Amino acid sequence: MAQQPALLDADGPDTVRMTPDEARALGEESLCRLGYPQDEAAIITDQLIDNALCGYRFASLPRILAIAGDEKTRQPRRPVTVIRETPVSALLDGGNNVGYVAAYRGAEMAIDKAKVSGIAVIGVSDSYYSGRNAYYVEMIARAGLVAIHTASAKPRVLPPGGTRPALGTNPIAIGFPSEGEPVVYDIGTASMMWGEVLLHAQLGLPIPDGVGFDAAGQPTADANEVVKGGVVPFAGHKGYGLSFAIQALGLLAGAAIPRGQVQDYGFLFIAIDPAILLGPGVFAGQMSELVERMKATPLASGVDGIRIPSERAFHERARRREEGIVLDRVVVESLRAL
Amino acid sequence: MAQQPALLDADGPDTVRMTPDEARALGEESLCRLGYPQDEAAIITDQLIDNALCGYRFASLPRILAIAGDEKTRQPRRPVTVIRETPVSALLDGGNNVGYVAAYRGAEMAIDKAKVSGIAVIGVSDSYYSGRNAYYVEMIARAGLVAIHTASAKPRVLPPGGTRPALGTNPIAIGFPSEGEPVVYDIGTASMMWGEVLLHAQLGLPIPDGVGFDAAGQPTADANEVVKGGVVPFAGHKGYGLSFAIQALGLLAGAAIPRGQVQDYGFLFIAIDPAILLGPGVFAGQMSELVERMKATPLASGVDGIRIPSERAFHERARRREEGIVLDRVVVESLRAL
Repeated sequence: MAQQPALLDADGPDTVRMTPDEARALGEESLCRLGYPQDEAAIITDQLIDNALCGYRFASLPRILAIAGDEKTRQPRRPVTVIRETPVSALLDGGNNVGYVAAYRGAEMAIDKAKVSGIAVIGVSDSYYSGRNAYYVEMIARAGLVAIHTASAKPRVLPPGGTRPALGTNPIAIGFPSEGEPVVYDIGTASMMWGEVLLHAQLGLPIPDGVGFDAAGQPTADANEVVKGGVVPFAGHKGYGLSFAIQALGLLAGAAIPRGQVQDYGFLFIAIDPAILLGPGVFAGQMSELVERMKATPLASGVDGIRIPSERAFHERARRREEGIVLDRVVVESLRAL
Repeated sequence: MAQQPALLDADGPDTVRMTPDEARALGEESLCRLGYPQDEAAIITDQLIDNALCGYRFASLPRILAIAGDEKTRQPRRPVTVIRETPVSALLDGGNNVGYVAAYRGAEMAIDKAKVSGIAVIGVSDSYYSGRNAYYVEMIARAGLVAIHTASAKPRVLPPGGTRPALGTNPIAIGFPSEGEPVVYDIGTASMMWGEVLLHAQLGLPIPDGVGFDAAGQPTADANEVVKGGVVPFAGHKGYGLSFAIQALGLLAGAAIPRGQVQDYGFLFIAIDPAILLGPGVFAGQMSELVERMKATPLASGVDGIRIPSERAFHERARRREEGIVLDRVVVESLRAL
């Protein structure tokens, strides 16, 4: 008899395993108790469950506890509305809604406009917690469109030579439809995800050398000090420049509108229908061929394959849909107690 | 009496100092002798002189010798033509022209269409030598538009775990208008510029550890072996993924059209009029404020300022316009002998 492959996630006395549907129900109920209407609770939870399925356990249901504790959640929310619109663009007022909702509306509108006009640019501001950028980009790619998405945020990242954060963790995601699964590239431009810094602080783990700085701009490995300071960009000046460009693209998305601050949250979406350039039905096949050509690269010894962006996450998602997802018991209990 | 600041570039027995106009005349005459019409010779030379002014000496007039020696230059050229067009897009056939010409036509069209429609995406294929990407992006930013430009190329870069190049050096450039000079971010996604690899081979200099691989995919510091192999992407998997995304954006630009190859040259331009999102006259001021805020970051000891992307190059350009540019005597003589 063939041996069963090991589960992706280990169970333990402090964990609870749930089907995606059970976890979804728990998330939606918690958010409704926080005052979210059912449709928004469903939009937020869908992403949080997808994050867990793709292997981002701490970007999943625990985020509802973070949302519950955030001062912005206690400030009034307005529906996401259109401030300015053309056939190829829209500037959205995020209405102090979490990014899970506001950026989702931006991605929806990018799809609608690009389907009609061939290309669209959408900006969203007055929001927080942009969410997992790959989620929105996959959504746009599944609509048959090429997507570029950037998200600027408030300062967490020190520019080279500076002693105070001046840039957000500023992620960029780029997605492509193919004949198979979409291909989605998604990175943060900080040397460490901010959520990971917070987790290190919670668990008392050190921050790697050269990454973290305290409130006075002195290098430190103490995650609790880094939380009050910031981290450096990835890849030196190349990463710094990209982070700077994403902060500027945030301005284009309206980042400075809500509070008059040029260093603030701005989510930008560009969606392109490949048919306007290549004609209908051409791009997806070429994209699949590019993936095949990359995977056909001869391998160094000991390497079992060339990785394609998002491939691992999508494999894991398929497995966890069967195996279920693992949550910390304390998270489940805290959500039930909200 | 105040001391004169040192010249940016040193003179020597093997160099010639020229005014930009003298260098321009030399470049245009050489290209006309190679068969380029006057208008195209002027377009190519304008960029090559700008490259020298900005400090990229080897991306300047020596490139005319490289063009003269390239087999593609001996193949027939056709005028750059439009294959497919909408109010927001154009796919251009580069006509086997050097990128200096073909990408310039793409940037021009991106400006024209974005000025009318608010946003535009332009693809250019059947070309080679994309040129300095910052040049086109600055041109679009000076027209008051935000620009994103990527250029895919034929394989020079090994994906992690692979033993053969499968990606181009795939640069990305992003540019922004401001109330002062435009801000232009421009990087290659290879760990080393290919032109630099060729120069190291010419000069017999070693390639840094971990960067270069020979034709068999074995690590080597010998630049002459690396020329037959390739280099790794910058920044590990984050850089690899970006390079992969740029190869895919190249498909959108038509890379696979001329030769049916998905790993080939494709230059993509996206130009956005910020007014469609923010209303007229808003973005440039916010961009200048972002630059000021970045530069106001408190400095670590020994640091004399926060660098803004393209700032150094533009300062040097202003100085070299006065001081002149320095060319190798052998380059000048070879150009005159063409």
